[in-house]
Amino acid sequence: MKTKVLLCLYCLCFLLASCTQSVVIKTEIPARQAGQEHVLNLSVAPIDTVRIGMIGLGMRGIEAVRRLPHIPGVKISAICDLREECLEKAQKIMAKFNLPQANEYKGEEGWKELCRQEDLDLIYICTDWLSHAPIALYAMDCGKHVAIEVPAALNMEEIWALIDKAEQTRLHCMMLENCIYDFFELTSLEMAQKGVFGELIHAEGAYIHNLDFFWGEYWNNWRLAYNQEHRGDVYPTHGIGPICLALNIHRGDRMKTLVSMDTKPLNGKKIMEKVSGKTCEGFANADQTNTLIQTELGKTMLIEHNVLTPRPYSRMYQLVGTDGYASKYPTKQYCLREEVKGEINAREILEEKVYMDQELKALQAGYTSPILTPELEKSAKEVGGHGGMDFIMDYRLIYCLQHGLPLDMDVYDLAEWCCLAPLTKLSLENDNRPVEIPDFTRGAWNVVEGYKFAISK
Amino acid sequence: MKTKVLLCLYCLCFLLASCTQSVVIKTEIPARQAGQEHVLNLSVAPIDTVRIGMIGLGMRGIEAVRRLPHIPGVKISAICDLREECLEKAQKIMAKFNLPQANEYKGEEGWKELCRQEDLDLIYICTDWLSHAPIALYAMDCGKHVAIEVPAALNMEEIWALIDKAEQTRLHCMMLENCIYDFFELTSLEMAQKGVFGELIHAEGAYIHNLDFFWGEYWNNWRLAYNQEHRGDVYPTHGIGPICLALNIHRGDRMKTLVSMDTKPLNGKKIMEKVSGKTCEGFANADQTNTLIQTELGKTMLIEHNVLTPRPYSRMYQLVGTDGYASKYPTKQYCLREEVKGEINAREILEEKVYMDQELKALQAGYTSPILTPELEKSAKEVGGHGGMDFIMDYRLIYCLQHGLPLDMDVYDLAEWCCLAPLTKLSLENDNRPVEIPDFTRGAWNVVEGYKFAISK
Repeated sequence: MKTKVLLCLYCLCFLLASCTQSVVIKTEIPARQAGQEHVLNLSVAPIDTVRIGMIGLGMRGIEAVRRLPHIPGVKISAICDLREECLEKAQKIMAKFNLPQANEYKGEEGWKELCRQEDLDLIYICTDWLSHAPIALYAMDCGKHVAIEVPAALNMEEIWALIDKAEQTRLHCMMLENCIYDFFELTSLEMAQKGVFGELIHAEGAYIHNLDFFWGEYWNNWRLAYNQEHRGDVYPTHGIGPICLALNIHRGDRMKTLVSMDTKPLNGKKIMEKVSGKTCEGFANADQTNTLIQTELGKTMLIEHNVLTPRPYSRMYQLVGTDGYASKYPTKQYCLREEVKGEINAREILEEKVYMDQELKALQAGYTSPILTPELEKSAKEVGGHGGMDFIMDYRLIYCLQHGLPLDMDVYDLAEWCCLAPLTKLSLENDNRPVEIPDFTRGAWNVVEGYKFAISK
Repeated sequence: MKTKVLLCLYCLCFLLASCTQSVVIKTEIPARQAGQEHVLNLSVAPIDTVRIGMIGLGMRGIEAVRRLPHIPGVKISAICDLREECLEKAQKIMAKFNLPQANEYKGEEGWKELCRQEDLDLIYICTDWLSHAPIALYAMDCGKHVAIEVPAALNMEEIWALIDKAEQTRLHCMMLENCIYDFFELTSLEMAQKGVFGELIHAEGAYIHNLDFFWGEYWNNWRLAYNQEHRGDVYPTHGIGPICLALNIHRGDRMKTLVSMDTKPLNGKKIMEKVSGKTCEGFANADQTNTLIQTELGKTMLIEHNVLTPRPYSRMYQLVGTDGYASKYPTKQYCLREEVKGEINAREILEEKVYMDQELKALQAGYTSPILTPELEKSAKEVGGHGGMDFIMDYRLIYCLQHGLPLDMDVYDLAEWCCLAPLTKLSLENDNRPVEIPDFTRGAWNVVEGYKFAISK
């Protein structure tokens, strides 16, 4: 009988423990292996000529092949795709630049062969979402740095595997998040860092992009199929990336919890039937997903995802500070306090002033990003790629490798931005409960003081 | 020993029950008294001349005194304020209109005396937030209809008390939410009801208004003091009201749960010290509060509150539908699908088209709100009050009373819109846990089919 009571008491304790833990859902944080250390501010020996292997030459990949030859000290040494016509297209671009033809890899195992080619420094991965992390892991095993299109990882297992691999191999593992390099974001980041907006307290980001125009274009319809199977904010990185840099995430602050709420799925099924020509039995992802995030220092973030209904394109990008405000979509605006003679009782008071158009440009003029030299800005606008930001991204990646500097985005950025997909799903499937966002640095989130672009002296 | 084991098992069951209930926080829903019935679509006998008693003649009240005489069949019979100068100001306005002077009530008990005056149909309440509900309850006890400035109630006790009182007395209890009457909102509501946006799936609203200019103006500094003591979205009605009508809340759908997340409080303390000239020991409310709401039919809403940092004024008002989009702030926009010849493979595809400026006006022209006659629109623009919406609000209130029609907003609208303040507080103080939004109709949320303005035949 005594045993039973003890057992019962044990049960009680266990239940009590579960009850107190039951509010915030936590995912497992794997322990770091002995001897393994974080890769914050990781730098490697300078690489004069960066020899690149490109995997995936479809929508994003072929554009990179067009951009990269514009950067001095880059050699596209190897290319890989399942489709012969994509390889041909890439070789033609190389020929246009009077560059030697790259080694070609094809077939199901082509990407592995490419990763094993010895004279490569960097593997540039532009395949479909599902193959990003497996390729990156294999490439690092082959001793190569990796740059991976967004999203670089789709679930917590892939994210932790990439972190562990990067920490174990001491290789760069960067996600190709181009949106941090757009002109408005770069300038506003500089303004935020100079204190123009006071202390930032809230920020908003989004991926609102009606893909009606594109759904038929993806290889094997993989993108819509992914949305059919996965509920959650499956494409968060363009929205979250730029605002994480502004809020110094894992450089003095960290994302702590999220709650997510979505609409019922309506349009996905209709679009799937149109694109596939078949009856669609079910569609998991919502037309719109909304997520709130809280940081360790008590700031908040809002992230929205909507690729299925007609809305004007928007990544939102709004920074709310104690003394000012920046907003990119739908209208570029800054808002700051200014001293005015009040209408009421003629008091001297503070009122807000909105900067748009020419006034906005004049205000921005004092806050050029340190990475944006006039030459780079000129080249970026000439070469293009989403208005120039893609070129700046490639340029910075190569620049940092050539100078032996830390890259602009590390594997923890990759982890933090990608984890929103699986973690929003967890919140959505559990009555919008708060979900813990792990400290992917495993204890080092406040070691680095503020976000900085590395620049060679 | 047996007893102990049983006791222990009982504890276990209790704990298990609490555990399963622990995710969504629920507040008490008081039972309806026997014989008491809902007041959906409540109408009373037509009142030819609406005799009004005005309580509170400060910022909002004195404006109402300026507007109401423009409406035929209105008589301001009684006025009440603690401040002699406010009473004088009101009488002067009456004199300007060549109207008889109103009975005056002053002192701490003045409002009660006014409510007891016999020849009054409607009590129009524009006092500070704290006294709204107590005055309204007393006025209904005195047999008067009530129209109450926003927010009409500050906590769940006041909300349920107003509902019970309205159901028991069968008197109108309307909140004076002016923002449902703004031109863009009225037109977009009509467009939504005509199906222009397809099925609405998400909507956004906000009260983003930097009050730097106004903090010194409130009687006894009550508004800032309220924010100092109360955490949460304390002023939600302007943001939530218009989108609730668009989503047919308690007319076929209902708000089910919310989660709320706020920033740490930074500016409140500073502003309090500036306004009061004294050291501020603590400030409860955040600089910004963000709330997500889920409805019974699987739609979502986002509500933001920020009165403490410089941001451009915004009530957001965004409607997201399966086939279209409306956005009022910061730029008036509609977005609809249109058939286009696709650039890729020359397919016929659908793409989104954004309507702004002249195109927006042309689109709106086909969707004039049924309440907005050319005469009313003209008068509204002449009399003004937030660009005309305040006049339309007063006009509609009087019109419906004169024609014996249900008012545009009932006591359940009041309840739903006001409950966000106490319920966001509950979520914020409990780790952003979801909180149940009660069905204030107590079972009748899907009896009325869709929101409709009542119009006399």
